Amino acid sequence: MSDDTPSSEARLRLRIFFGDDVMLGPGKADLLEHIRETGSIAAAGRSMKMSYKRAWSLVEEMNRSYREPLVDSSRGGTKGGGASLTQAGESVLAHYRRIETIIAREAAEEIAALQTMLVDMSDGK
Amino acid sequence: MSDDTPSSEARLRLRIFFGDDVMLGPGKADLLEHIRETGSIAAAGRSMKMSYKRAWSLVEEMNRSYREPLVDSSRGGTKGGGASLTQAGESVLAHYRRIETIIAREAAEEIAALQTMLVDMSDGK
Repeated sequence: MSDDTPSSEARLRLRIFFGDDVMLGPGKADLLEHIRETGSIAAAGRSMKMSYKRAWSLVEEMNRSYREPLVDSSRGGTKGGGASLTQAGESVLAHYRRIETIIAREAAEEIAALQTMLVDMSDGK
Repeated sequence: MSDDTPSSEARLRLRIFFGDDVMLGPGKADLLEHIRETGSIAAAGRSMKMSYKRAWSLVEEMNRSYREPLVDSSRGGTKGGGASLTQAGESVLAHYRRIETIIAREAAEEIAALQTMLVDMSDGK
């Protein structure tokens, strides 16, 4: 975080729509990642400031959309239920992250060209 | 549109965030394109089922965000005002469309891999 950090740093957000119903985007990818980290759908949701209901609904939607469920979970129970990524969940997350990496790398020149056209936000203009 | 067209055809939507305030995504790119086609911000908005106010607000936001305005317009008047893309507007639109093309090409393999993992929507499962 030096003073040279441009305030117009670019962040990319990709949504992939499959047919009319299935979407994969940054929110679902982050949710999968947080489930892996926390071992819990509720905790993953909380860490994203997402309601319990919303987090469950996204997991159920993902599990319905792929041939194999992406998240393995036991709802409720004394410990509030645990959750982990299945092999399919790990795979979907890895594909999405690789796509993000590819975009950042391959589109870097075009994005840099756009940045030079922006108002310079760092000097208060 | 043959019967072999997979119902899970992928469409990509990229949003690029610059700093905290400036975003370029499919809506703004399409709006620029429609302004070029129709020569009118109002007509461009209508063709995207966007309110006049919303279309103007997006144009004003874009014109503020870049060093040069992207859209040249004369609001109101007897002909209701005409609008066209400036050279900067053409350039921003071209950069965004090239980024879309790059993504579709470079991420094709990863996206195809995701598609094979989806429930086959074409056979009603």
